[in-house]
Amino acid sequence: MDTPPIARADWLEAPAGLEQIADGGITSPAGFHAAGAACGLKPSGALDLGILVCDRPATAALVDTTSALPSEPVRRNREIDAAGIRAVVVNAGTANAATGSPGLEDARRMAELASERLSIPAQEIAVCSTGTIGDRLDMAMVSDGITLAAEGLGSGAPEGFGEAIRTTDRWAKTAAFRLDLGSEEVTIGIAAKGAGMIRPGMATMLAFVTTDATLRADDAASITARAAREGFNRISVDGQMSPSDTLILVASGDAEALAGGDLERFAAGVRSACRWAAIQMVKDGEGAEHAVRVLVSGAASTEEADLVARAIGDSPLVKTAIFGRDPNLGRIEQAVGQALAGRDGPAPRLSVTLDGAGVDSADVADVMARPEYDLEVVLGRGAGSAELFAADLTHAYVTLNAEYHT
Amino acid sequence: MDTPPIARADWLEAPAGLEQIADGGITSPAGFHAAGAACGLKPSGALDLGILVCDRPATAALVDTTSALPSEPVRRNREIDAAGIRAVVVNAGTANAATGSPGLEDARRMAELASERLSIPAQEIAVCSTGTIGDRLDMAMVSDGITLAAEGLGSGAPEGFGEAIRTTDRWAKTAAFRLDLGSEEVTIGIAAKGAGMIRPGMATMLAFVTTDATLRADDAASITARAAREGFNRISVDGQMSPSDTLILVASGDAEALAGGDLERFAAGVRSACRWAAIQMVKDGEGAEHAVRVLVSGAASTEEADLVARAIGDSPLVKTAIFGRDPNLGRIEQAVGQALAGRDGPAPRLSVTLDGAGVDSADVADVMARPEYDLEVVLGRGAGSAELFAADLTHAYVTLNAEYHT
Repeated sequence: MDTPPIARADWLEAPAGLEQIADGGITSPAGFHAAGAACGLKPSGALDLGILVCDRPATAALVDTTSALPSEPVRRNREIDAAGIRAVVVNAGTANAATGSPGLEDARRMAELASERLSIPAQEIAVCSTGTIGDRLDMAMVSDGITLAAEGLGSGAPEGFGEAIRTTDRWAKTAAFRLDLGSEEVTIGIAAKGAGMIRPGMATMLAFVTTDATLRADDAASITARAAREGFNRISVDGQMSPSDTLILVASGDAEALAGGDLERFAAGVRSACRWAAIQMVKDGEGAEHAVRVLVSGAASTEEADLVARAIGDSPLVKTAIFGRDPNLGRIEQAVGQALAGRDGPAPRLSVTLDGAGVDSADVADVMARPEYDLEVVLGRGAGSAELFAADLTHAYVTLNAEYHT
Repeated sequence: MDTPPIARADWLEAPAGLEQIADGGITSPAGFHAAGAACGLKPSGALDLGILVCDRPATAALVDTTSALPSEPVRRNREIDAAGIRAVVVNAGTANAATGSPGLEDARRMAELASERLSIPAQEIAVCSTGTIGDRLDMAMVSDGITLAAEGLGSGAPEGFGEAIRTTDRWAKTAAFRLDLGSEEVTIGIAAKGAGMIRPGMATMLAFVTTDATLRADDAASITARAAREGFNRISVDGQMSPSDTLILVASGDAEALAGGDLERFAAGVRSACRWAAIQMVKDGEGAEHAVRVLVSGAASTEEADLVARAIGDSPLVKTAIFGRDPNLGRIEQAVGQALAGRDGPAPRLSVTLDGAGVDSADVADVMARPEYDLEVVLGRGAGSAELFAADLTHAYVTLNAEYHT
C-alpha cells in the first residue's frame, strides 16, 4: 500500500521554507546509505533487516522509551555514547524484548556483526528490533541479514530500509524535506515504523532522522528530545507504550554549521518531519479508519489538558464512536469527567466541536466522514491546552490483535 | 438470557454461613417490594422504570461516582440524607447526564412523583437513571412509568425491577443470599446493572442492596463503602468510569440488631453479594467472552499493585489476546513496563501464570478456553498485591459501541 498524503497540512506545523521532496527518503541528505534484506525473521519472506549508515563520522542523538521494562536493544544502546552514532541496524519480526541477559548479548552481537561488515566501530552503531515480545532472535538469520543488507548498500534501493522495519504497518513511512534557510539549504530525511502498541512515552516505536546539517551534539540532543515530545509523544493508537520505542537523529555535517535563527528553523523542520511520521503512524494505526487531532483548551494547566486529551483519545467508547461516525457528546463528557475525577477547580463547562462544527449541527456527519479532523474540546477551567493525535477503534484492530500471536 | 452461575465460587469470598437463595432477589429480605414497568423510554417497549421500596422507615447508605461530571440524579441524591433512603426510583434508556440544571429539576421531579405515588417523603427516595448521556428525560413517560410501577408493587413480580434497570446488559443481575449467624439469620438481596462504561470509581453503574438486618447508619455507611471498594471498584470492562455510578444499601431492620463478630460477618456477606454482582457485570461485559481475575503480587505497594493490575486489565492488547486465547507474555510485560515507567525501585522480575499454568505449558490452552480464570502476575519488587476483574475486548464490543448511537 502506498504511503497516503496527509490532507491536513497545518497539522505538520512546518516552518517557512520547508517542502517535501517527491520520492525522498532517509538517503536524500548527503552522506547516507541504506538498504534492506530478507533473512527469514518474517515468516512471509518479506524484507526484515535494514541498515542505515552515514559514510563519515556524524553527530547524533537518541531518545528512547520510558518503559520500566525496556527491550534489550534499548538497554544495549544505553551502553554507548549516542552522540557518536553513525549507523543503525534494525530487524523486524522479533522485538528482542523481555529476553533478559541472553537477549542483551544478542543485541551487542548484532552491533558487532554490523561493525565487521561496515568496518566502523560497534560503539558507533545503534541496534533496534521490532516485532513480537518475548522471543529470542535467530542470530544465524540476523547474521545473514546483516551481510546481505551491507552488500546492498550500494545497490541503489535505499527504500528497502523503510520496508524492512515494518511489522503490522500497512505502508512504509519514509519521507524527505528540503529546508530553504536563505543562506543555505539543508535536507531532512525520515524513516519510521509503528501501527500498534503506540502511545510513545518518550519517542515512538522506531524512527530514524537523517540530515546533512552540521550540528553540535548538544543541539542534536535538544532538537531530538523536543521533536520526540512534540511529535511522537503527541500520538496514541491504543494507549499502549512500547518497550522498544527509539528515535535516532544522525547529522552527516555535509552542509554548513547552523546557528541562531537558522538552527531554530532547522529544529522546527525536524519537528515537522517527526510530526509527519507520527501522523502517518496514527493514520496507519492498527485497523484505523480515522486520524483525529484532539485539541483540548481551557484546562487548569498544560498537564491537565494533556490528561484530558489522553482520556478522550484513549477512550474505547470515544474511539468506537469515531469509527461509527457518531457525534457522541456523552462519551466525551464521560471521558472528561473521569479524567478530572478528584481534581480541584470549577466544574468543567464543556464546549465540543468537530472541525468547527457543533455536535448537533448538520455539518457534523460530513466532518466525521473525513479521514482526518480536529475534535476541539474547551473546558472553561483555565488557559492550559494540549493536542493528541488519536486513531479510532475498529473491528480490524480486534482481528489483528486477537490473531497476531506470539 | 438467564443469569449464568459464577463457576469460580472462591472469587466471591463468601463468609461462613452464606448461601445463595434459589430464585432470590431484592425482595427476599423482609420489608421490601419492587416492580418494573414499561413507559416508552426504551424504544423496544421493554421494561424501563423500576421502583424498590421498603415498607417501613429504614437505614441506608449510598456511594456514588467520583466523576467530575456526575449525572443529574447523582447530583440530586447528594441533596438528601442518604441514611434516610427507603425507596429508589430508577429508569433506563436515558441517563439524565450532562443535562445541567433542567436535568437536575427533572431528577427532583422524579422523586416528587414517586413520593406522591408511594406516599413517602421525597427526601427518602433516591433517583437513578441509566442509558444514553446528554438527552433530557421524557417526563410524561417517566410519570406514567412511576404510576404503573407503583401500581405493580403488589403484583408479585419483583423481578421486573431487575429487568427495568437493564441497558446493554444481556441478563438481569439479581440474587439473594441467606447468612446464618448462629444466633439469627439475615438475608441480603441485590439487583444491579452494568455491562459497558464499567470502571467504577467509587461504586458501579447501579446496584441496590436490600437486607432485613438492623443497622446503625454509620455501620451501613462503612459497610457500603467497603463493599464498593472491594466489590465494584475491583472490576473493569473498558476502563471507562460512568457519571451515574451509584450503590445504595437499604436495611429494613426486620431482624435483630447486629454487633461485634456478627456485624463483621454481615459486612463480609454484603461484600460477597456485591462481588457476585460485580463479577456478573464483567461476565456480561459488552461483548465479553472471558472474565479474568488479574492477581498482582510482589509490588512495591498496594497502590503500585493496583496500578499494574489496571494497566494489564485495561490494556486493549492484553484484552484482545484474552479474546484470541493467546498466552501473550509480551503484552503483559509491555503493560507492566508502561505502568511502572518512571517509578523507583528494582526492575520487575515477572512471573506470569494462568490458573497456575505457565504461559509455555501444555495446560495454558485449556485455561484460556475457560470463561473464568486467574491471571497471576508476580513482580518481585515488594509485598503489595491487588486484584482486578477484567473482561476481554471482542468484535461484539466494537459492534455494540460503534452502533449504539446517542
